[in-house]
Amino acid sequence: MPSYTAPLKDMQFLLHSVLNVTASDTPGYGDLDEGFTAAVLEEAGKVASDLLAPLNAVGDREGCLLENGMVRTPTGFKAAFQAMKDGGWTALDCDPDYGGQGLPYLMGTAVGEIFVSANMAFNMYQGLTHGAYSAIHTHGTAEQKATYLPKMVSCDWTGTMNLTEPHCGTDLGLMRTRAEPQADGSYLITGTKIFISAGEHDLAENIIHLVLAKAPGGGEGSKGISLFIVPKFLVNDDGSLGARNAVSVGKIEDKMGIHGSATCVMNYDGAKGWLLGDLHKGMRAMFTMMNEARLGVGLQGYAQAAVAYENALAYAKDRLQGRAVTGAENPSGPADPLIVHPDIRRNLMEQKSFVEGARALTFWAAHLIDRSVRQGDAEAEGLVSLMIPVIKGFQTDKGFEMAVQAQQVLGGHGYIEASGMSQFARDARIAMIYEGANGVQALDLVGRKLAQDGGKHVMAFFDVVKAECQAHDSDERMKGFVGPLKTASKQLQQAAMFFMQSGMKNPNAALSGSYDFMHLMGHVCLGLMWTRIAKAAYTAFDTGASDRDFLDAKIATGRFYMARQLPACTMHLARIETGAETVMALRTEAF
Amino acid sequence: MPSYTAPLKDMQFLLHSVLNVTASDTPGYGDLDEGFTAAVLEEAGKVASDLLAPLNAVGDREGCLLENGMVRTPTGFKAAFQAMKDGGWTALDCDPDYGGQGLPYLMGTAVGEIFVSANMAFNMYQGLTHGAYSAIHTHGTAEQKATYLPKMVSCDWTGTMNLTEPHCGTDLGLMRTRAEPQADGSYLITGTKIFISAGEHDLAENIIHLVLAKAPGGGEGSKGISLFIVPKFLVNDDGSLGARNAVSVGKIEDKMGIHGSATCVMNYDGAKGWLLGDLHKGMRAMFTMMNEARLGVGLQGYAQAAVAYENALAYAKDRLQGRAVTGAENPSGPADPLIVHPDIRRNLMEQKSFVEGARALTFWAAHLIDRSVRQGDAEAEGLVSLMIPVIKGFQTDKGFEMAVQAQQVLGGHGYIEASGMSQFARDARIAMIYEGANGVQALDLVGRKLAQDGGKHVMAFFDVVKAECQAHDSDERMKGFVGPLKTASKQLQQAAMFFMQSGMKNPNAALSGSYDFMHLMGHVCLGLMWTRIAKAAYTAFDTGASDRDFLDAKIATGRFYMARQLPACTMHLARIETGAETVMALRTEAF
Repeated sequence: MPSYTAPLKDMQFLLHSVLNVTASDTPGYGDLDEGFTAAVLEEAGKVASDLLAPLNAVGDREGCLLENGMVRTPTGFKAAFQAMKDGGWTALDCDPDYGGQGLPYLMGTAVGEIFVSANMAFNMYQGLTHGAYSAIHTHGTAEQKATYLPKMVSCDWTGTMNLTEPHCGTDLGLMRTRAEPQADGSYLITGTKIFISAGEHDLAENIIHLVLAKAPGGGEGSKGISLFIVPKFLVNDDGSLGARNAVSVGKIEDKMGIHGSATCVMNYDGAKGWLLGDLHKGMRAMFTMMNEARLGVGLQGYAQAAVAYENALAYAKDRLQGRAVTGAENPSGPADPLIVHPDIRRNLMEQKSFVEGARALTFWAAHLIDRSVRQGDAEAEGLVSLMIPVIKGFQTDKGFEMAVQAQQVLGGHGYIEASGMSQFARDARIAMIYEGANGVQALDLVGRKLAQDGGKHVMAFFDVVKAECQAHDSDERMKGFVGPLKTASKQLQQAAMFFMQSGMKNPNAALSGSYDFMHLMGHVCLGLMWTRIAKAAYTAFDTGASDRDFLDAKIATGRFYMARQLPACTMHLARIETGAETVMALRTEAF
Repeated sequence: MPSYTAPLKDMQFLLHSVLNVTASDTPGYGDLDEGFTAAVLEEAGKVASDLLAPLNAVGDREGCLLENGMVRTPTGFKAAFQAMKDGGWTALDCDPDYGGQGLPYLMGTAVGEIFVSANMAFNMYQGLTHGAYSAIHTHGTAEQKATYLPKMVSCDWTGTMNLTEPHCGTDLGLMRTRAEPQADGSYLITGTKIFISAGEHDLAENIIHLVLAKAPGGGEGSKGISLFIVPKFLVNDDGSLGARNAVSVGKIEDKMGIHGSATCVMNYDGAKGWLLGDLHKGMRAMFTMMNEARLGVGLQGYAQAAVAYENALAYAKDRLQGRAVTGAENPSGPADPLIVHPDIRRNLMEQKSFVEGARALTFWAAHLIDRSVRQGDAEAEGLVSLMIPVIKGFQTDKGFEMAVQAQQVLGGHGYIEASGMSQFARDARIAMIYEGANGVQALDLVGRKLAQDGGKHVMAFFDVVKAECQAHDSDERMKGFVGPLKTASKQLQQAAMFFMQSGMKNPNAALSGSYDFMHLMGHVCLGLMWTRIAKAAYTAFDTGASDRDFLDAKIATGRFYMARQLPACTMHLARIETGAETVMALRTEAF
């Protein structure tokens, strides 16, 4: 059975040596001293290792069960959910006005990684609730906030997001779910939604569905869509639960992974709902939550790779097979451990350098979101909204790829379900799909974000990279970082330039390279992170840090990423510069 | 539910326009005229579509069941297996002296792809039997052949391969299974083998296990290993079945995929066995079958990608979502089909160009095996043995990757088991692991095959590529093929040179780049195939072929591969040339 240990040391290093949180002017960051964050993360790590990780395989094996319109979650989920509530984990970064603890989103992200690594499916019940909480918190009326938020902060009530219908996913303009206005100001919602995570389950007293639907007068396409609050049980004026609403689960899906998370078909048969935010502006309301939601999925990508890596590494150190080609390293044993073999090491280093780089990128993005939300920093908001599709698309692609590579370390044993490695890969797979499939992320990046506000944000991104390079230009030790980062960043600029020039004539020329661009930018982001990490490690050395082994490992891992992974940028640029010609040459009928 | 249609046109094109089989001097090829191969492939396609494909999901859902020492295969497998026997499919490329039809291995390979695409797990019962048949055919005594082969050709009896033990997979020198010689010339085999595909099941009267074990006097390590025939039921002198042997299934594994194939723990408790081939030379006996076995797994890789691509393509043509950025292509409908979007096309073209290129490579390799086996062509044998690790490693890595990309086309629907796309990916995953994990293939390629016979075979490979380039140098139409192939081939040579020079000083410098070299060479092989295919298409044009749409599509698909996929070679070379430094920098304890 696999195990999980939270990467406390790496997280503390990121918070205090790379991001220097206590030196930040972001409100609330002053409280995040080393002792405090260590206590929070350590406690989260204990909960993850002792409570959540052991339930991961149970959830996968048992899945959820639909009986008489009720969904039963796997054995142990209910007690664990109660323990999470009792421990206050659901309220961590929520608004104190509604019972939250008010910690920065950055801390919620760090704790989130720990819980997602331990049990991704279980964590979705809370994760979806947090998303719905954010939507109501941003767009709700004072009354709506008072009615729903306290119960959602405590997870007594959970939340859902209802977008997809059988015939439409990405193209929400095709939506058929209707909202009929009633005399009392409410709406009756009718339609079918699919792929609704946590749509029905036995973990909470009530479920607050956020549902996209078309209300009269909104016109065609996605512009006429509105967002509604549709509770499973209506809420009385005194806050107690009233009548059951006309919403029910039609079936639950049999999926490749995240079996512990109930994926529901939801039927709305004239269910009572209330408008959230402005009429016919539901898409905009959804979009304001998207940065957080997509960051959360990008986190799932590397969090699964992280736990898969931990277990692959343990196997590679333990399993004796063959001899090091440079001479036995375990001469008294029957064979050397797998980790002596260069190709096993290459594999492990690819996993390690991705996971730690992606963690740094995700933490930085969470910090930018804090700056945006807590102090109205528009530049931070622009920068993070540019990077969000990269964090979601690149990190989930690579996260899955790395979980598969981790599985490979175990050979045949990795293919056996009992090893747990298959589940990491199967669970990680969904993150490439939901919250906007990764091709849609690439489209968002190239078709929308690059040109947003006159290209201001992408210019700002290049400035950040340039400043980082210049800051270390004279530091001889940083040569292995600054050089490759400069090259990769130039390649990214060249790709953006190609899009501008060729995309004018033929938009397909840019869109044919969108996926490669997303990955190219992902590598530049991780190259930037490793440059920062290396600098932080050298600085710690210079100031006499005691944990020299840890810092040495950081620098060596970063060097690997720069030398071995950044060459992918050359390939992506070459592909991009072939434009649309070979991609679009075949007529549809000729396929 | 997914469907399957055999790629008859592409196979015929490869056989008759690319390989020109009837013009070959390989014995048996003269009979392979277009009408004959069309009839065989068409009939195989019918069996695959009507009988095997519908059972694929059944096998996945039900899996195999172990009860009282018996393994029950999924519903319908028994009847289908009988139909395959009745149709003569199990005997297709077997020796006529033992009831086979004597067709070339190339035809067995083409038909094999069709069956594997339709139902990979089902096909393993026959596939394993074919491997055991080959071993006995090559190494058995006249009596052994007469006893076992006719029943194995008909699949009345099936076969297995027993290598792996709980504590040893790749490193067979650690093996513990023992063979004790008896006075009557037989041996008593004692030990436990794991991951034995088709180790026990209800499809055959008898199961002939080929078991690696250590007999006294062989010394330590893998040199002392011998190969034994251990039948489930002993065979009487008259060929009838006698007593049950002391071999039994201990358990069957719960796996990520190929659920319809029983993966067994086999216990040998003093089971009666007979030496196959020479004493203490079991490894050599296994190795002679390895080209075929590994080619078969490389075939599984692209065969799963092929069926996944077929279903992704159908979805992309059918599913309406969004509008083409260059203007509506389905203006009378509510939206355009997915296939109009450049990134969906990029994805589909990657799948298509890989599948068709890998099919060409696999067919060519099968032809080389025919030349080696049927006419003792040593050059063909050298060339194919060089390419085998590439075919196995590259094609299964890419096959899985492409099955995952096919799944991505369906968005959320691809994650739902009912779509069948998850199964293609889960089934394809095993091919990267068994028959030597892909890291071991890379080691075989770089550590063994490159230098074999003084580097003769790799020089021959470069000569083949060079000759292909020179042959079309003056053909203006071939510019988009010859140029990229030359570049990629030079990069491969440069990588090999790097290994020679740096590997002398530090073998880790070569082995750190072995995986990248395997992929680099895979791209060169597929580039070579697409160059040949394009030339064959142009030749067909020049000689007035009627099916111009098909030929146009071939050329366009090839152009895509050369322009969009060969740039990976630059990346692999850059990685290789960083040597061992960053890969081996971290001490084991520092991970």
